[in-house]
Formats: sequence, C-alpha cells, structure tokens
Amino acid sequence: MAENVRRDPFARPGKVHREDAEIEFSRVVAFSDGVFAIAITLLVLALEVPAGVDDLAQELVDLNPNLIAYALSFAVVGRFWLSHHRFYGSLARFDGTLMGLNIFYLAWVCLVPFSSELLGEYSENTTSTVVYAVNMAGASATFVIQIFYAYRAGLIREEAKAAERRYAGPANFVVVAVFLASIPVAFVSTVAAQAMWLAIFAVGRRAGDWIARRQT
Amino acid sequence: MAENVRRDPFARPGKVHREDAEIEFSRVVAFSDGVFAIAITLLVLALEVPAGVDDLAQELVDLNPNLIAYALSFAVVGRFWLSHHRFYGSLARFDGTLMGLNIFYLAWVCLVPFSSELLGEYSENTTSTVVYAVNMAGASATFVIQIFYAYRAGLIREEAKAAERRYAGPANFVVVAVFLASIPVAFVSTVAAQAMWLAIFAVGRRAGDWIARRQT
Amino acid sequence: MAENVRRDPFARPGKVHREDAEIEFSRVVAFSDGVFAIAITLLVLALEVPAGVDDLAQELVDLNPNLIAYALSFAVVGRFWLSHHRFYGSLARFDGTLMGLNIFYLAWVCLVPFSSELLGEYSENTTSTVVYAVNMAGASATFVIQIFYAYRAGLIREEAKAAERRYAGPANFVVVAVFLASIPVAFVSTVAAQAMWLAIFAVGRRAGDWIARRQT
Amino acid sequence: MAENVRRDPFARPGKVHREDAEIEFSRVVAFSDGVFAIAITLLVLALEVPAGVDDLAQELVDLNPNLIAYALSFAVVGRFWLSHHRFYGSLARFDGTLMGLNIFYLAWVCLVPFSSELLGEYSENTTSTVVYAVNMAGASATFVIQIFYAYRAGLIREEAKAAERRYAGPANFVVVAVFLASIPVAFVSTVAAQAMWLAIFAVGRRAGDWIARRQT
Repeated sequence: MAENVRRDPFARPGKVHREDAEIEFSRVVAFSDGVFAIAITLLVLALEVPAGVDDLAQELVDLNPNLIAYALSFAVVGRFWLSHHRFYGSLARFDGTLMGLNIFYLAWVCLVPFSSELLGEYSENTTSTVVYAVNMAGASATFVIQIFYAYRAGLIREEAKAAERRYAGPANFVVVAVFLASIPVAFVSTVAAQAMWLAIFAVGRRAGDWIARRQT
Repeated sequence: MAENVRRDPFARPGKVHREDAEIEFSRVVAFSDGVFAIAITLLVLALEVPAGVDDLAQELVDLNPNLIAYALSFAVVGRFWLSHHRFYGSLARFDGTLMGLNIFYLAWVCLVPFSSELLGEYSENTTSTVVYAVNMAGASATFVIQIFYAYRAGLIREEAKAAERRYAGPANFVVVAVFLASIPVAFVSTVAAQAMWLAIFAVGRRAGDWIARRQT
Repeated sequence: MAENVRRDPFARPGKVHREDAEIEFSRVVAFSDGVFAIAITLLVLALEVPAGVDDLAQELVDLNPNLIAYALSFAVVGRFWLSHHRFYGSLARFDGTLMGLNIFYLAWVCLVPFSSELLGEYSENTTSTVVYAVNMAGASATFVIQIFYAYRAGLIREEAKAAERRYAGPANFVVVAVFLASIPVAFVSTVAAQAMWLAIFAVGRRAGDWIARRQT
Repeated sequence: MAENVRRDPFARPGKVHREDAEIEFSRVVAFSDGVFAIAITLLVLALEVPAGVDDLAQELVDLNPNLIAYALSFAVVGRFWLSHHRFYGSLARFDGTLMGLNIFYLAWVCLVPFSSELLGEYSENTTSTVVYAVNMAGASATFVIQIFYAYRAGLIREEAKAAERRYAGPANFVVVAVFLASIPVAFVSTVAAQAMWLAIFAVGRRAGDWIARRQT
C-alpha cells in the first residue's frame, strides 16, 4: 500500500522517485528532448531560398549573416541541451514544480528560432542584439532556477550534489551573467556584445571553475 | 498460450496490459509527446521577423500581442501536456478505442498553433477570440471524454481511480466549462473572455477541488 | 561468441532479434513515430492566418475546405500510424531491408502535408484530387510491401502471423485498392472520389474481414 | 562507491558505459533521432502549393525538379540516419567529446532542408549544386570524424571493431570523397555532378568493400 501511494502520481504533494516511475520520468525527458530537437531544427527555416534571382552566388554571400546566426544558435541550443541532459541525469526524483519550471524554461528555448532569425536579418542592429541577449539570458536564468530548486527540494542524487554545486550551478550562472552584461554593451557596440557571447564557449567552463574554487 | 494471446495486439477485442506490451504503450505515449512537443514549438512560427524595416524596436513593440498569444498558448499546451502526462501515468492498460480518442484529441491540440497565430494577429477581435475558445474547449472536451472512457472501460489503475474521479475529471471539466462560457462573453467583450482563460490557471484547481468536495 | 555475433549489427546478412537489440529496434520505431508526429503536426501549416482583413469571420468560412482537408488528412495519417504501430508490434525481429522499405514508406507519409494543403486550396479540382489519391495509394502500397516482406522473411512473431495474414494484410490491401480506384473516378467527379476515401473508414475493416473469410 | 563514481555523469574526465547510464545514452540517441526525423520531414516544406492558378496540372509538372530534390534528399538523409543508427549501435560507451561532435554533425544534417530547397528551385545551377555538395560533404565528413574519434577513444564494442574498421569507416569515407569530387565537376556540368551523387547509392558499398580489401 505504501508503495502504491508512492507510485501514484496523484498522491500530492510528493516527489516521485525515478525508479518508481521510470516511464513518467522518461516522458518528461522525452518531451524536453523533442522540444530541443524541434527548436534546433527550426533554425534552418531562417535561411530563405531566394526566389527567381539571376546571380545566386551573390545572393548566398548576402545570406552570410544568417548562416552565422544559424551556427551560433545551433551551438547555443546544443549547449543548452547538453546542460539539460547532464542536469536531468543527476536527478534522483522529480516533482510537479520542477515540471512546471521546465515548461517555463522550454518556452524560452522555443523562442530562439525567432531571435536567431531576427539576428540574422538585422546582424548589426542594437534591437536585434538586445532581443537575442534577453532571450538567452531568460533561457539560462530559468535553467539556473531549475537547478537551485532541485538542489533545495532534495531532488538531486547524493553523489551528484557536489558536482552540481561546484560545477553546473556556477557555470550556468556565468552564462546568465554574460548574456545580461551584453545587453548594455549592445547599445555601444553590437560587435562587442556578440563577441561576449562567443567568449562563453571559450571561458565559460574556466570561469565556472574559478567561482567554484572561491566558494570552497 | 494464454499469455501469447494476451500479448498479441491482434487479439481483438481486448485490452492490453501496460506491462505486457510496454513498448507498444510507450509508443502511444511517445507519439503523443512528439505531437505535443511539435505543436508547442510551432507556436514560435507565429512570430514573424519583419522584413527590411528601419525602426525595428517599434516593429517589435507591435509584436506584443503576438508574444502574449505565444506565452498564453505555450502555458495552455504545456498544461494540456502535464494533464495528459498525469492521465497516462494512471493507466493500467489501454485499448484501440482509447488510441482512437487520443488521436481525435491530438487533432485539436495540433490546431492550437493556427488559433494562437490568429489570436496574436487579431487580438481584440470577436472572431479570433471565439475560434481560440472553441479550439481549447474542443481539446479539453475530447480529453475529458478520454478520462471518462478510460474510467468506464476499467483502464485506470486501482489506486489511481479515486484521484482520477475526485481530481482530474472535475478539474478538466472546469476547463471545458470556462472555455465554453467564454464564447458568448467574447461577443460582448474580448478582454473579459480572455481574462476568463487566465483565471483557469488561478482558480482551475481550486474549483476542481470544490466540485470534488460536493460530490462526496 | 555466438551471442556476440547475433548481437552485432554488422554481422550481415542477418536478422536481429528484438530482444537482442531492443534499443536498436526501439530507435527504428522512435524514428518512425517522430516522422509520423511531425508530418501530422505540419498539417496545421496549411491553415494560413489571413493578413489584415476586415471581415475575419467571412475569411474563416472560406477556410472551410482547408479545415476539411486538415481533418481528413489527420484521420488518414492517424490511421496510418495506428496500422504501423500494430504491425511493428507484431514483429519478432527486423533487418536492413525492412528498415530501407520503412524509409521509402515514410517518404510517402511525409508528402501528405503537401498533398493535403493542395487539396484544401483546390478542393474541387481533378488534379489535386488525383495527387492526393496517388500520395495515399503510394503510402498504403509501400506499407503493404513491408507487411508482405516481413511475412516472407519470417520477421513476424509466430502467434501474430495468422492475424497478420487474415486481418492486416487484406485490410491494408483494400486501402490501396480504394485509393487507386478513386484516381479514374476523380476525372469524372471529385466529390465521388473523395467520398470513396471516407468510405474506407466505414467499410475498410469490414471489407478486410470479407476478403479474409474468402481466403480461408 | 566506485560504482557511484562511474555512474556519476559529473565525474570528469570519463567515459560512461552504456549499461551504466542507459537512460542518458538513449537520450543522446533520441535527440539525434528527433533531429533526423524533423530534418527529413521539413523537406516537404520546399514543395510550395501554387496560389490561385488556373492550370494546376502544368504547375505541378513545373514542380518536378523540387520533387526530385525531395526524393534525393529523403534518400540521403535516410541513409545518413541508417549509418548513424548502425554506428551508435556499435558503441560500448560514449563521452562528452563524442556528444559535442555529434551536435556539430547534426548542424550539417539540419542544413539539408535549405540546400535541398535551393537545389529544387535552381536545379541546373552551379551554385546550388555546389552548396548541396558542400552540405553533404560536411555532414559525411563530420560523421567520419565521429567514427574515427570513437575508434581511437575505445568507445566501440570489441566485437564491432573489425566491422567498423573494414566496413563503416571506408564506406563513409567514400561518401565524403564523392561529394567533394563533385564540387569541381559541378563547374563543368551540374548533371554530371548530380549523377555522381546517385552513384553513391549504387557503388558506395561496393567501393567501401574494395577499399577494405586493399587495407587487409
């Protein structure tokens, strides 16, 4: 009976153990993966095939900023997915609040095809750069909130807790901070703001480690 | 032999135990999840990148109703998915009728990107508000039908039945009722009709509990 | 060692047992489900939101043929998926040829959003009706080929063979025949051709049973 | 404790055994499958329904190059997926580098709907032919890199190593070579370049076998 109660997804409030509800847990993960996979694939729709032009080569050269936005966004969403993958791999159990937070997070991820197309079309424009930074900061921030909530609610596996606190939390916090910091920078120089985003890939992990060291 | 017959998906009429046909059950669930994930991600296609404008910031301000429709629809479809997730978690077995009803339900869910874009483009318009309400009422109603059918056909796990009858059924019935009730309201005030939808998120669960209490 | 050989997907030619390679089998199924889920969800893209019109209600009334095409195609693809689901549930093992045939089949299924939009835009047109019928006949025919191949190659579970031969094979053969027969009819009357398609849902199973009885 | 460390996805650097982290491994696979399924289904969006024409039949005849590009790209992406399926079936474990390489590879696969639409619209054009060849060469090359890395890093199952070295590696290398070789050819004759691509399906496996024999 006690087991039944724990297995029952209606028995609120309660946390469901991964092993007790493997199919339910894997559905949350499968849904998230599906949304990631679709959002990352929809990025290609920003690359429009020019209609009835004579000099196709020149038209494609003009598509360059769109291709760069595609590559950047693919890398960013891919990195988001890797972090999400790692984080959900560290969960021992989950609850309704985490699922709600996850949907809120996915709403930011699903906006990326729009922001990315905007950035490709208006590549040296303050507005599009700010929109892109806000979108990415929103996605990263709602992800950090998930990590913090999971940590507080005791949803993380015992052996993964240290890594989560020392590595994943700070690293993702740095991502939020860089995207937020790039917003005022975009009003001065869009190139500088965009360079800050690229820097995340280079120094993100290192900065996360540095913060982690200072905490201990 | 008896076991073979139970395992055989061709042995009609019959209900298939989840444990007997885990891969078949998880396919139904995976297909539904896929449809949910795609429908929720396609919502972003309603946000069109303006072509070749000078004042991009102003154009994006004009996109505000579309962004609100995106956020609302993401929340609604997300909530639909959570309910679906919970309901399928309570099933002990399934049959062909439930699968047919599920496809009928998904047809309504897949319409949401259209209704949502319509609402974003024509945000204070009676027609678009009615279409949105009809779409959501149709989705909720076909979901309630699934719950009722599963309950009657004995497809729900014993320990989940009480919760299903007291919580999920009434809560989803309230959602149908609110969306239906918002249709006549939309002819008087589209703002009032849309406010009713938002109220679902605030009072939906409470109202479901209230109905459940009156039943017992 | 013998076990290793059987587990090795590179050991050609050979059939892989479902139990020996559950993850590989479930990938084929998951990929197919993904394609089905996306194709069925893309149907909604045929419903275009009219831009900047005054009488929105009238515009939506004009969308009626598109909505009918949406409903019809959702039902047809949903039925295709149910048949595919049932067929793969009856497999004991699979091989490379079946996977190739499956991809060929999915190429027809993925064309449905195009044919469906065409039918919605040109609802009483011989050309669009023929294209739709050819698309559906192609999908059904390549599905029947999969069933026949799987039956011949001994990929079907022993206990499911009878059902496959008596039920699934003939039923799907009827679907092919009706779609093919509707092609010449479309040159005389598109309404009659489309009525034939609807008849599949009503009489398809019955006709399959009738054929099955004559065979035995 | 030692087991915990191996199970811990945060314990870097390290390779994760498939059996130790089945759900994590299947997420990578599911994400890849999702991306493949969406990319292959988005190919249909290149087939535009002509708006308000009188002679629909003639319009559809003009769509022929687009249909051919659809069929070709469906076959190519389908083949990519089969290779990916086979390769991941041969893995004994995976690590973060392979996951990063996989995302880089998927970025090329996701470009195919764009290149395919370009080829359909400009079917006898040097530029579109070159873009298509570059896209496919990029996808094939990043796939070969994955195989080589996995082989070097000891991620491949012992019993699959010989097949991987003798069959999969060379076969995929031939695909890269043919697509690369077709680029200069496209400047002389687009038909000849495109014929080379089709030849892959006919001779690809045979050439791979031939290379494999010369190596031994």
